[in-house]
Amino acid sequence: VNKKIGKQSVMFENALTLKSVASVVGQKEGEGPLGAMFDAVEADAMLGKKSWEQAEAEFLKRALEKATQKAQLMQSDIEYVVAGDLMNQSTSSSFVLRDMPIPFFGIFGACSAFGEGLGLGGMIVDGGFAKRVLVAAASHFCAAEKQFRFPLELGGQRPLTSTWTVTGAGAAVLELGGAGPFVRGITTGKIVDMGIKDMNNMGAAMAPAAVDTLAAHFNDFNRTPDYYDVIATGDLGYVGRDLVMKLTKEQGFDLSQNYTDCGIEIFDRDTQDTHSGGSGCACSAVTFAAYYYPKLVSGEIKRMLLIPTGALGNQMTAQQGETIPGIAHAVVIESANA
Amino acid sequence: VNKKIGKQSVMFENALTLKSVASVVGQKEGEGPLGAMFDAVEADAMLGKKSWEQAEAEFLKRALEKATQKAQLMQSDIEYVVAGDLMNQSTSSSFVLRDMPIPFFGIFGACSAFGEGLGLGGMIVDGGFAKRVLVAAASHFCAAEKQFRFPLELGGQRPLTSTWTVTGAGAAVLELGGAGPFVRGITTGKIVDMGIKDMNNMGAAMAPAAVDTLAAHFNDFNRTPDYYDVIATGDLGYVGRDLVMKLTKEQGFDLSQNYTDCGIEIFDRDTQDTHSGGSGCACSAVTFAAYYYPKLVSGEIKRMLLIPTGALGNQMTAQQGETIPGIAHAVVIESANA
Repeated sequence: VNKKIGKQSVMFENALTLKSVASVVGQKEGEGPLGAMFDAVEADAMLGKKSWEQAEAEFLKRALEKATQKAQLMQSDIEYVVAGDLMNQSTSSSFVLRDMPIPFFGIFGACSAFGEGLGLGGMIVDGGFAKRVLVAAASHFCAAEKQFRFPLELGGQRPLTSTWTVTGAGAAVLELGGAGPFVRGITTGKIVDMGIKDMNNMGAAMAPAAVDTLAAHFNDFNRTPDYYDVIATGDLGYVGRDLVMKLTKEQGFDLSQNYTDCGIEIFDRDTQDTHSGGSGCACSAVTFAAYYYPKLVSGEIKRMLLIPTGALGNQMTAQQGETIPGIAHAVVIESANA
Repeated sequence: VNKKIGKQSVMFENALTLKSVASVVGQKEGEGPLGAMFDAVEADAMLGKKSWEQAEAEFLKRALEKATQKAQLMQSDIEYVVAGDLMNQSTSSSFVLRDMPIPFFGIFGACSAFGEGLGLGGMIVDGGFAKRVLVAAASHFCAAEKQFRFPLELGGQRPLTSTWTVTGAGAAVLELGGAGPFVRGITTGKIVDMGIKDMNNMGAAMAPAAVDTLAAHFNDFNRTPDYYDVIATGDLGYVGRDLVMKLTKEQGFDLSQNYTDCGIEIFDRDTQDTHSGGSGCACSAVTFAAYYYPKLVSGEIKRMLLIPTGALGNQMTAQQGETIPGIAHAVVIESANA
C-alpha cells in the first residue's frame, strides 16, 4: 500500500476515527457565535491559578480530561499524547503532562499545533504503533499578549490587523477503526516566509504558508476545492483570509464557495472587537471540536479540510528585525457517510 | 506484526538505517576529547551572524546540509525534517527551514529533541509514510545562558551542579532499508517531575525521567542492561549520572558496566571547567554522531541505547516558583553485525 501521495501528503491506510473531541474556553469565546457549542465556558480566565501561564496549562488539562471522558476511556487507555502550545518551551503541555503518566511527544508548530498533532497522531495510529492517541493544543490571550507583544497592563493599542488569541484548549482522541468521523489523510506543510515583520499581522505572515499547503494538497491528492464541503484554515482572520482568496485565485483555484477560517467563525466581528478575528493554538482546535465535529458526526459536512496555521517567530526575533516564518498543516476529515 | 512492545515502546518492523550523521560544533567542543571526531569545529561561535540565536540556527543549517551531503543526497531527496532546539518558539529550527522547502515537523522536548526526533522519524519511515527523514537538534551555550539563566555579560557564577550547553548541531538521515547502523526501536518517555527547582541543576531534574524510561525500556523489551554494549543518556552530566546510578541500583538493575552520559564524554572534566559536564539539545546529537556512530559502523559497538534527556521548564516558570519537569526518550541502535 502506498501511503505517500504526491510530494508531501499521506493517505492513511486504516480507518482512523476521531472518537471524541473536547473544547474548554474562556468567557469571551463563550460570548461568541459558537458559545453554546463548547463543552465548557469558564467565566474565570485564571481558572483559580496564580498566573496566566498556569491557567493556560489548566485549560489544556481540562480539555485532555474531557476528551478522554467523552470517549468513555480511562487515562490509562491513552497510549500517547501529542500536544503543543504557544508558551516558551511549550511549558503548558509539559506541566500538564507531569500529572499524566502517558508517553508524550511535545510538538511546536505555533498555532498549527492541532494540525501537526493530528498528522503525527495519525501516523502513529495508522503505522501500527498505537491504537489510541490523544492530540491537543492550547493558548491563552493574556499569556500570549504578554509573551509575544506587551503585558495587558500596558494598555497597548491593538491595530486592526491584529487577531485575538483564543483562550482555551481543544483535544481529540484518535483511534484505530471505529465509526468515524475519520481522519483520512494529511498534507504536511513546508515553512514559507514572504517577509512580513509585523507581530500584529500574523494573518498576513501565515497566509502564504496556507496557500502553499493548499496548492500542494490539491496537487498531491489530485482534487479540486469543490471536493470538500468546508475548507477551514486555522487562525488567519479576515486579513489572512482575504490574502488566501487573492493568492489562490492567482494560482487558478477557486475557494469562493466553501472556504472560511476558524478565526472568523469563533468571534463576532461586529460586537466582539477582535479586529481581524481569532488566533492561537486553541483557535482551530476548539472551533473544530465545537462547531465542525458535530456536523461531521451528523453528516451535514461530509468532507472537510482543516488547515491549522502557525506563525513561527518570537518576541526576540521580532526585536532582531527578523521576518515571521509561517507553516500550515492540512488534515482531511470525513464523515461516516462521505 | 505487533510493533508495540509492552506499555510504551515500539519495535520497528523494517530495517531503518542511519545512513549518515553530521556534527558541527564550536571551539570549546573542538578542544574536548571528541574534538577530532566532529565533522566541523567552528572557531567563531557567532558563525559570522549578528546574534547568538542566529548563530544557533546557522549551526543547525550546516549540520542539516552536512548530513544530506554525507548521505550523497540532494535536499529534494529528503521527505520530512523533524527538528528541535532550545530557543523560545523553536526559532532556530523554523528559521533554518525557511530556506529548505521540505515538509517539517517541529518538535519540542528540550534536550531530548534528538531522541524524540529519531522516535517520530522512525515511526514515519517504518509506518510507510516516507523513505527518508532528516532528524536534527541544535543548541548554543551563549543563547541558552541568556535565555534560561543570565546573559553572559553579567558574569554570573556557575555553580558546580551546572552543565555547559553544547554549542553546535547534530543531524541524521534515517532511511528505509540500507546496511545499518539500524534504529531498531524506541521507548517514548513520560514526563517525570521529582521537585527540583534549580535551573542550574538540570542533571538532577532529568535523572528521574531517564530512570523511568530505562525501567520501562528494560521491562517492555524484556532485556537487562547487559544486552547493550553502551547505554548513554543525553546530558545529565556527573550529577545526573550519579543519580541515575543510585536510582537504578535501588530499582534492582545494574548499570555499572556500560553506562555513561554524553555530557560526560564531550568535555574534559579536569581541563575544561564545565563543572557537571555538557548539556543542550546538541549534546547527545553531536556526541552520538561523532563518537558512537563510527563505532556502530565499525562494529566495535554492536548494540547501544541512546537516551536523550530534556528539562522542560523555562525562565518564567522558574521565576514563578515551579519545579522542572523532565523527559527522556530511549532509542535502540544496532550495528549491522549485531
